[in-house]
Amino acid sequence: MSYYEQNRTAFLETLKEFLRIPSISTLPEHKPDIRRAAEFLVEQLRGAGLASAELIEGPGNPLVYAEWLGAPGKPTLLLYGHYDVQPADPLEEWKSPPFEPDIRDNNIYARGACDDKGQTLILVKAVEGLLKTRGDLPVNVKFLVEGEEEAGGEHITHYVKQKPPRLASDAAVVCDTEMFAPELPTICVGLRGIVYSELHVEGAGHDLHSGVYGGAAPNPIQAIAEILSRLKDRQGRIKIPGFTDRIRPPSDKEKAAWERLPFNEKKYRKEMGARKLVGEPGYTVFERLWARPTLEVHGIRGGFTGEGAKTVIPARAVAKISMRLVADQQPDEAIEQFKTAVAKACPKSVRAEVKILHVGAPSLTDPDNPFIRAAAQALTEKFGQQTVFTRSGGSIPIVGVFQQNLGIPSVLMGFGLPDDNLHAPNEKFHLPNFYRGIETAARFLEIVGA
Amino acid sequence: MSYYEQNRTAFLETLKEFLRIPSISTLPEHKPDIRRAAEFLVEQLRGAGLASAELIEGPGNPLVYAEWLGAPGKPTLLLYGHYDVQPADPLEEWKSPPFEPDIRDNNIYARGACDDKGQTLILVKAVEGLLKTRGDLPVNVKFLVEGEEEAGGEHITHYVKQKPPRLASDAAVVCDTEMFAPELPTICVGLRGIVYSELHVEGAGHDLHSGVYGGAAPNPIQAIAEILSRLKDRQGRIKIPGFTDRIRPPSDKEKAAWERLPFNEKKYRKEMGARKLVGEPGYTVFERLWARPTLEVHGIRGGFTGEGAKTVIPARAVAKISMRLVADQQPDEAIEQFKTAVAKACPKSVRAEVKILHVGAPSLTDPDNPFIRAAAQALTEKFGQQTVFTRSGGSIPIVGVFQQNLGIPSVLMGFGLPDDNLHAPNEKFHLPNFYRGIETAARFLEIVGA
Repeated sequence: MSYYEQNRTAFLETLKEFLRIPSISTLPEHKPDIRRAAEFLVEQLRGAGLASAELIEGPGNPLVYAEWLGAPGKPTLLLYGHYDVQPADPLEEWKSPPFEPDIRDNNIYARGACDDKGQTLILVKAVEGLLKTRGDLPVNVKFLVEGEEEAGGEHITHYVKQKPPRLASDAAVVCDTEMFAPELPTICVGLRGIVYSELHVEGAGHDLHSGVYGGAAPNPIQAIAEILSRLKDRQGRIKIPGFTDRIRPPSDKEKAAWERLPFNEKKYRKEMGARKLVGEPGYTVFERLWARPTLEVHGIRGGFTGEGAKTVIPARAVAKISMRLVADQQPDEAIEQFKTAVAKACPKSVRAEVKILHVGAPSLTDPDNPFIRAAAQALTEKFGQQTVFTRSGGSIPIVGVFQQNLGIPSVLMGFGLPDDNLHAPNEKFHLPNFYRGIETAARFLEIVGA
Repeated sequence: MSYYEQNRTAFLETLKEFLRIPSISTLPEHKPDIRRAAEFLVEQLRGAGLASAELIEGPGNPLVYAEWLGAPGKPTLLLYGHYDVQPADPLEEWKSPPFEPDIRDNNIYARGACDDKGQTLILVKAVEGLLKTRGDLPVNVKFLVEGEEEAGGEHITHYVKQKPPRLASDAAVVCDTEMFAPELPTICVGLRGIVYSELHVEGAGHDLHSGVYGGAAPNPIQAIAEILSRLKDRQGRIKIPGFTDRIRPPSDKEKAAWERLPFNEKKYRKEMGARKLVGEPGYTVFERLWARPTLEVHGIRGGFTGEGAKTVIPARAVAKISMRLVADQQPDEAIEQFKTAVAKACPKSVRAEVKILHVGAPSLTDPDNPFIRAAAQALTEKFGQQTVFTRSGGSIPIVGVFQQNLGIPSVLMGFGLPDDNLHAPNEKFHLPNFYRGIETAARFLEIVGA
């Protein structure tokens, strides 16, 4: 029986202890919990044999850092995770309290179980097992765990941008994604980037009565409707000039691999609860989700939205609009193209201004990269199935930050499942994936160091 | 010195007392104030010589009723006003407390000063003066004053729809409008009607993450944008088939009269604070405001509108959309045309449903109607200027209710000024207009009874 098999109960108890700390980064009242979670992790890393474990203080929540550099000549891996979690509301929809971990049907239910405390602990326990049984590691490792991934990740971005020599590495390992399906080991090789903006539109100087002024006064919400319907057509094609020019289409090999993924479009649509899927004609669902950009409106503020009727023409309105970008779109260029298109689509009776809230670059890693190959081999061995390569339609900005500032690719090896309820009530982590994840991560380090 | 000149101080004190009652009909905590205001009015009417004054109880706030029928063979006038007021918020913008009347520069400042306590009292004091000095009235009068004009007016509508014999009259007098400009006596002969609706749009069964689903999932806000931009074009033309077919254009005489109104388009635009006026090409501002329908979006609920960024694709969104109608558009027909156009404009990936919140018919009165002529004569005499005939872009649903159920026209003789801040902080009423209003109303009764 391996160290990993012997210690499952201990690993589980540690995970429960970690999950009992409500380290919600978006709510200021949880600041003490944030620190408790960070300190808990430092203790765990020290207990694993990384005496160097410490907090890095700075603008925001502390980073947790630890290193083991006893394998000169071997690659160095930067192991990333986050110890903060999403808020738990709506509380009444949880079957067990979000910060009292409960095990049902081989799943552990708690906020952060999968995202990302369970997955962060996988990396810690993998290293612990190797150090306890071998006395050393096959590679050099540097842990860098942040405490505000759910709140913008400013501290880690600020820190990595300074390119501190201690972060020099050959690749990052980001354990914060999911498997495409149960039992199907998955590596994510592409992420969409994001430009999140606010479109501010101003009409009159003050709110107006629609009876008195309707027919002569500009309406900023109508103007936003005009703009939105010009930026994207009814078929879902983005009409921003030049916007799609740099897109690198997926290779035939990648597209063929996507065709083989277990996927039922009808079932997918039903789970979504939609009458019909939308999207650009001529592209498969995976291409639309992973390899094509989006333009999405998330909400409009301004005007009257209470119960009943109020006949106001609002003076101003703000729409939240994001664009997801794919390789090789460049965020700065996309922003300029977007601003130009908005200015052109905007009716002359109102003034429109675009404010950019945050930006993340898209990323795409070659599956033939040796670190990806090693991860795929470890996953295939431990799960007994061929590893699949997917992309994600979402954005993990830290991957771009590592790429741009440290010049390293990221291995996105995740053990979550599609129904783990991330960011929702009843978040869970499948315990067999927790245990297999630890063994897979350890095996990955061995292969990289071989 | 006439009775009216002698009693100005007493009239003013009565108005102040009336204004001190915070009879806000939209806030349930003011129910006792509503009743106090209604009872205050009953006392006033009795004091004026109308012993019949009483409350009519029913579904909603009490109506105040009083009649004097001592002029057989003479016309009977239904005198309408309302004793309820709008809420006063934002309180911090008031220079003097909203329910402590304050006189500055010959204006009385208080919530309800003009809308509609001051104007309701004009009718009461006009009748009082005639009864005190002549011992009778030149016509028969029936007061009907409501207490929920600012909250939908359900009680009075319900009551009038029963066509109670006691309401039989030859014309209504609605003292709840404004003069086109200071010193310019004005009768409003046309009102736009209104259809106020909610457009409910449903996409997926639950909110979705725009990273994971963006590109394949329907977006209800984008769908609303599509619908809005198809219902009205960039030039402000409503594109609902058949919608404008029944519109009766203003006569050349009426249009010529509008041309003579004191109006500076540039100044109007600057006061509005807009860069540019909008509206249908080929129509003057007055035609766009008074004689053309509108389609206006007032707000969209759904999605994320807080500070910062949230990448949600909302499952559903609701837009508040109103249409203002002009003679001879028919609300029921307009609703059907609107629903058909929405269904046609709606993308197939979402489901749209239109809910009608309230409806008011447009109205248009012939300026040659004898009651209108009498009012114009009284106004011209008392203000020393030729009375002008305008329309209003707003809606006073009670006018349509009187027309449809009692078969009577309304005389809209108002003494407010354009800067009286109705529904806004620092509402005021110009005291000379209060006093002249009383004399004008009395003179009007004399002319009608002559």
